Formats: sequence, structure tokens, C-alpha cells
Amino acid sequence: MTDAVPSFADWVAAVQTRTETALDRFLPAAAVAPSRLHDAMRYAVLGGGKRVRPLLCHAAGALSGASSAALDAAACAVELIHAYSLVHDDMPCMDDDVLRRGKPTVHVQYDDATALLVGDSLQSLAFLLLSEHCDVAADTRVRMVSQLAIASGSRGMAGGQAIDLASVGIALGVAELEFMHIHKTGALIRCAVRLGAACGQLDVDAQARLDHYAGTVGLLFQVVDDVLDCEASTEALGKTAGKDAAANKPTYVSTLGLARARERARELHAEAIDSLSPLGDEARRLRELADFVLTRKH
Amino acid sequence: MTDAVPSFADWVAAVQTRTETALDRFLPAAAVAPSRLHDAMRYAVLGGGKRVRPLLCHAAGALSGASSAALDAAACAVELIHAYSLVHDDMPCMDDDVLRRGKPTVHVQYDDATALLVGDSLQSLAFLLLSEHCDVAADTRVRMVSQLAIASGSRGMAGGQAIDLASVGIALGVAELEFMHIHKTGALIRCAVRLGAACGQLDVDAQARLDHYAGTVGLLFQVVDDVLDCEASTEALGKTAGKDAAANKPTYVSTLGLARARERARELHAEAIDSLSPLGDEARRLRELADFVLTRKH
Repeated sequence: MTDAVPSFADWVAAVQTRTETALDRFLPAAAVAPSRLHDAMRYAVLGGGKRVRPLLCHAAGALSGASSAALDAAACAVELIHAYSLVHDDMPCMDDDVLRRGKPTVHVQYDDATALLVGDSLQSLAFLLLSEHCDVAADTRVRMVSQLAIASGSRGMAGGQAIDLASVGIALGVAELEFMHIHKTGALIRCAVRLGAACGQLDVDAQARLDHYAGTVGLLFQVVDDVLDCEASTEALGKTAGKDAAANKPTYVSTLGLARARERARELHAEAIDSLSPLGDEARRLRELADFVLTRKH
Repeated sequence: MTDAVPSFADWVAAVQTRTETALDRFLPAAAVAPSRLHDAMRYAVLGGGKRVRPLLCHAAGALSGASSAALDAAACAVELIHAYSLVHDDMPCMDDDVLRRGKPTVHVQYDDATALLVGDSLQSLAFLLLSEHCDVAADTRVRMVSQLAIASGSRGMAGGQAIDLASVGIALGVAELEFMHIHKTGALIRCAVRLGAACGQLDVDAQARLDHYAGTVGLLFQVVDDVLDCEASTEALGKTAGKDAAANKPTYVSTLGLARARERARELHAEAIDSLSPLGDEARRLRELADFVLTRKH
């Protein structure tokens, strides 16, 4: 009798639960001074989110044979960077949004200054997790810190946000739009996959295939986001729907039209699946995640 | 004939120059996209500042026999964290200041959203410098990343800023005031000294002495800052004078009175010098820096 492989839904639930537990453990308790800051950091991170980046990190780690303990630290580091970017992105000087994951945003629930410090502190904590809690060799940790720093910084996520700001009211071509998203969303998603793989062992060809998969899934994620932003209700999304269009920001839908944006999503999905083709059954979760990103409703 | 030891002023000028050169090299060129963000990052960091933290880092490295190249990366990492904190601290939702180092603050010169992203990106870059450009063993680099992350985050500098925000209009005792400053300014100054020492070799006793020196100099720096903020003109400081008092923030002067604050500065200086007493001539620059922090006029 062999062990049954858990269903995708069960695997997702298990990773989400262990990520929540790990985040809860890694975040300072609200009782630790400064209490209000720590309380706000926990509010920003815990009890919400699909944990797409931790899922990708664990899925890549399953392929590279990484330990769950090392993956927890890597997955949480990436998730903390993502959470900080949401807190700062929602602030009045950026997107000025009041709703996130169905709750008031951090600056609404607390205040702008606290939101600023929450984001700053979550970024520092992400690097602390990699350096202190990721149980892999020191030279691997150093490389992971570098990768996360590049993916987060001015040539990664923060740079993508700057390009996003600069493109308000401008009709971008699809190549320029993808350049923005490769930075804004893609860099951190690719990093999640890379860090998961780095926690184990993988040959160069598999690394390259995984990297191509991650780049493709990152874009897919954004195309689907734009389609959902156009189609879904605020209630279903748990964040303000239609805000990109209202803010006059270019999206895949505004650039390509809805039908062509959906087609682009299917193309990217096929490309992601194709890049994994020689990798066998250990890449199962990565394939299922590509399906999930394509078909998600919120 | 022996080589003459450079004067303190010559040594300071040399470290400031090599720090400026290294920062210029480590920061992305303004020509690299996103240009406006990179231009603003360079505006925030280059061409100003006393570089107190890099000076402390190099002085500690001189004691531990560290190479100048490793020290450049460590010193610049700490300086980038300091620079990011100034950019965010000056924003309208924090201190709302318009002048820094004699120039318009980043959010005035550019805009609030850019200032937010500049700070975020400078923090990422600091961790990239330690992981990628600091030429020491991997396990040392990992430890340095941990130390910088702790010193920057919610239990260090950002936490100190949160305590500072919470203390507006509150009459703190001197113990509570020192608790705030140990976090807000002290953590990063201590980290500058630790990272400089970590780039070389130092026995445990010397490390403990250096750590005590750094904690004391961090407080000294803040006491002198408060005295100068009370005494000096905006022109001499290159930033708005008297703003803490105007903002109803507790300072050493408001808590102790001017005479007692000056006395406290002399006590802290004596303590710093005393902690270095068995360390010989290699600690010369650290002693001179304590003198400099005590007697500076801006």
C-alpha cells in the first residue's frame, strides 16, 4: 500500500496553515515594545492573503528536495516583502486605498506614520528571516539575501512601482506594460521560486526551466489580476475593484481588450506548463499552481 | 624613518571621500531605468552628510585589522539605512520637514510617492551590499545581515521612531528618553561599529569594550544633537533648527535642562573613552571620533 498523494486543495491548505503559523512565530509579539508598531505589523501580515508566493516557494522546494523548515523561512521572507509593499502601496501618497483583504488598510486602521514604519520594519524582518532562520549553508543564505534584495529593490519590485506611478494616464504598448509587470509583480514571484529551489539541490537545466516558469507565471498572475479587476466585484476581491481603470492606469485589459487579455493568459499558462515538461511528477505542485493562477476568481 | 600617522582631520576627509566614491559606485546610475527613482536615490544619498556611521565603521575596522574594501561595503550599507530613514522621517506623515543637509528634502524635490520608494529601495540596496559586495567569509556576511536587519527594524531604528511618534507631548523621564534613543539612533550607530569590527578579527573582550563604546557614543550623539538643536541656527545645521521643541517632542534639553544635558554629554564621552582604555593605539580613531561627536557644532 502506497501513501496517497494529497489533493492540490489539501496541499494548498497545508502550506497556507504552516505559513500562517511560521509568520505568527517570526513576527514580534504585540506585547513586545513598541506594542502599537508590532500590533500593526501583525495586522498587516496575519490572517489573510492567498499566500501565492509561499505556495510557489514550497512547490519549487518540493522539486529541489528542500526541507520544510528552510522553506518556511524563505517563504515567509518573500511574503513579508509582499506584505510591506501592499502596506506602502495603499498609503495616501501612493494608491490611497482603504480596503485590503476585506479589512481596512493599515494606514486607515492605525495612521500613515505607523503604516510607513510597518512597511519599513517588515522589510528588515524579511532579511532577518533569511539570514537567521533559514537552515541552509551560509553561502546559500548569502545568495538568497542577494536575490531577495535585488527582487525587492529599485531594479525589482520598488522599481516596478516607480514605473507604474510614471505611467498613469499614458497609453503603454504591451511590451512596456510587460516591462513594468516583470518588475512590479514578476521579480518577487520569480524570487519566491528561486529561493524555494535554492533551499534544496537542482541541476542547472532544471533551474533554468524553473526560472522561465516563474517569469511566465508572474506575468500570468498580473494578466489575470487585470481581468479580475475588470470583471469581479469589490466584495469578491476583498479589495477595491476597478481601481486601476479609475486611476487611469494602463492594464492588460485597457491595452489589449478583455478577449485578447484572456487569450494572453491562456498562452502564458501553456508556456509555463511547457517549461516544466521534462521535470516529472515532482513538478506537480508547480503545474497545479499555474492552473490555479489561471483559473482563480479573486 | 617611520610613516607619519595622518591627522584626525585628514583621516576623516579620506574616509568621507572613499565613502562618497563607494556610494556613487554602489548606487544605480541615473541613466538606468527607472531613471527618476535612481536619480532621487542618488539625490538622497550623495554629496552630503558627515558620514558619522561610516567613520565609526572604518575606525572599528582599523582596530580589527579589516580590509578597506570590506569596510567600504559595510560602511555604505549602514549609511544607506541611515539615508533611507532620513528620507522617510522627513515625509509629511512623519516630521514633515522641507530641509535636509541644506537642500530640499526628497519629497519636496521629487514627490511623496517617490520619497517612499527611495527609502524602500535604499533599504534593499543596503542588504545587497552586505551580501554581494562585502569581501568576508559567508558566515560573517550572514551574521552582518542579521545585525543590520535587527538594528534597522522594529526592535531597532524603526522601533525607536515608533516610540518617538508615541511620545509627542508626553513628558518622559530620562530613562524612557534614553530607551527611545538607544533604539532610534543608538542601534544603527552600534551596528556601524559592530560591522566594522566584524570585517576583521577581534577577541571577545575587545568586542565587548567596543560594543559598550558604541552604545555610549550613540547616546552621546543624541544628547549633543538635542543641545545643538536648541542652540544652533538652521543655517549652521543645514536642517530646520528647534523643530523637536516646536513639535513638542521630549529632548535631553527639555528633560534635563541645557546645563545638565551638557554635563550628561561630558559623562558619556568620558565613559566612551574609558571603555577603550586597554585597547592601545589602534583605537586612536575611535577615541578621536568620541571627541568629535562631543565637540561638533553641526
